[in-house]
Amino acid sequence: MKIVRSGNFRDFDLPRPVAFVPTMGAFHDGHLDLMRQAKQDAATVVVSLFVNPTQFSPGEDLGRYPRNEAKDFELAESVGVDTMFAPTAETLYANQGTTVHPSSVGLRFEGERRPGHFAGVCTIVSKLFHLVSPDIAYFGLKDLQQCSVLHRMVIDLDFGLQLRFMPTTREVDGLAMSSRNAYLSHAQRETAPALFQELKRIGGLETHQAILNEIPMAKERLTRLGFELDYLDLIDVDRFDIVDNFAESTAIVAAAKLGNTRLIDNLLIRPPSNWDVVVQ
Amino acid sequence: MKIVRSGNFRDFDLPRPVAFVPTMGAFHDGHLDLMRQAKQDAATVVVSLFVNPTQFSPGEDLGRYPRNEAKDFELAESVGVDTMFAPTAETLYANQGTTVHPSSVGLRFEGERRPGHFAGVCTIVSKLFHLVSPDIAYFGLKDLQQCSVLHRMVIDLDFGLQLRFMPTTREVDGLAMSSRNAYLSHAQRETAPALFQELKRIGGLETHQAILNEIPMAKERLTRLGFELDYLDLIDVDRFDIVDNFAESTAIVAAAKLGNTRLIDNLLIRPPSNWDVVVQ
Repeated sequence: MKIVRSGNFRDFDLPRPVAFVPTMGAFHDGHLDLMRQAKQDAATVVVSLFVNPTQFSPGEDLGRYPRNEAKDFELAESVGVDTMFAPTAETLYANQGTTVHPSSVGLRFEGERRPGHFAGVCTIVSKLFHLVSPDIAYFGLKDLQQCSVLHRMVIDLDFGLQLRFMPTTREVDGLAMSSRNAYLSHAQRETAPALFQELKRIGGLETHQAILNEIPMAKERLTRLGFELDYLDLIDVDRFDIVDNFAESTAIVAAAKLGNTRLIDNLLIRPPSNWDVVVQ
Repeated sequence: MKIVRSGNFRDFDLPRPVAFVPTMGAFHDGHLDLMRQAKQDAATVVVSLFVNPTQFSPGEDLGRYPRNEAKDFELAESVGVDTMFAPTAETLYANQGTTVHPSSVGLRFEGERRPGHFAGVCTIVSKLFHLVSPDIAYFGLKDLQQCSVLHRMVIDLDFGLQLRFMPTTREVDGLAMSSRNAYLSHAQRETAPALFQELKRIGGLETHQAILNEIPMAKERLTRLGFELDYLDLIDVDRFDIVDNFAESTAIVAAAKLGNTRLIDNLLIRPPSNWDVVVQ
């Protein structure tokens, strides 16, 4: 596995198609699943590892975000990654100023709670796409709104590459894998799977109306377990806003705190018809 | 000459290097000079013709902007352009939402007077760069702030292509060529060259201080001739703001109205050291 710290990948003339998995490191099986899928799909797999400061809002966990480059490199190599792109912040943000701003799908939910987050994501992903020139790029559905924002970005700005979205990788008890799960206490870790259990319970209901009716009860049950609910809503994925009568694609999205740790999860009921979602 | 209405140029496998001249049509010798230079520099010359609605502010001249596609195609062919990319607004803006925003060099002067203009420029140029994948792109120095905004965009977002800036092409009496000169009455056209004459007169002074001292008089002379001055300033091109003691690169920039027609011009005294300015 080659490790690249700077430069433009067009100069490397990599065998195509090139599959690209952008990450912030601290790899768990969710990341590795993206890499494994990329390996199946493409001649070359490039993974970037960069903890992007501009997608953290003030007061978020940029400083304590888990970092373990050596172990990440080992894990990536073990699943057949060809090139690891691990630039320094100085390389990527020597100049800063021009920014990419999300469409309206980035306004609500995480966009509302994390000011500047999606502009940070769009800007860094644009930079990485320009540097790596991939044919396909992989993102996990756990960050569903990020998928929506980036799907629109690729279309709106004519990036001319394919996005593949991978189902959320979960622990055996259903908790969505996340680098931030490491912040949970033992007791919080025991409680955490209840979030997805609720999503599944109400997601299994027959109609949108039945789901909407049940949401207040689901929130109450989670609150009783110790979750501090931020949102739990049935949304139209195309608009990334509360569902209306015209929704063709729906999901239930949730964010809640357990102590100081903010968990997000979702249940994608029906993906937008123009999304490439990997079926496992 | 091939005419392309939609699609991604990566599928065409054009001989490289590919030189790209983005335009809004209504070609005059300034545009043709960009194309002639491109022809000298590259194996393939692609010119785009698209009157971009998002870079016009409300109340500007989008509706009456001169359009003559057939004549433009003829002129482009006459200077050896290989491919003309003339997409419809429906093709390019079927989806709209994600936008590219300029760095601080887009805040003052035209950025202040034309709200949203540079975001419109950055967004459309990003889209065109993605669609055409050029190795070199050409812009005229007449729109000096646009050059500055795009130069920063290419660096900030790691576009990995070269920008070449071409000196302003002028009528024999010194008036900067512009599609908007067509709006001038006969009497206004006679007056118009005085703008550049003033820029040259004060630009010839020995020191920044001498220029700064003379600016109020220059403004007064132009006002007496019938110009309605918007700005006339000595700027630091790197920051695109009023010059200070640390300016390494300087220009005098001016905007003024003659009747309803807004003219801009500039005198680039010393370009930024990292700009590729074609010397004629």
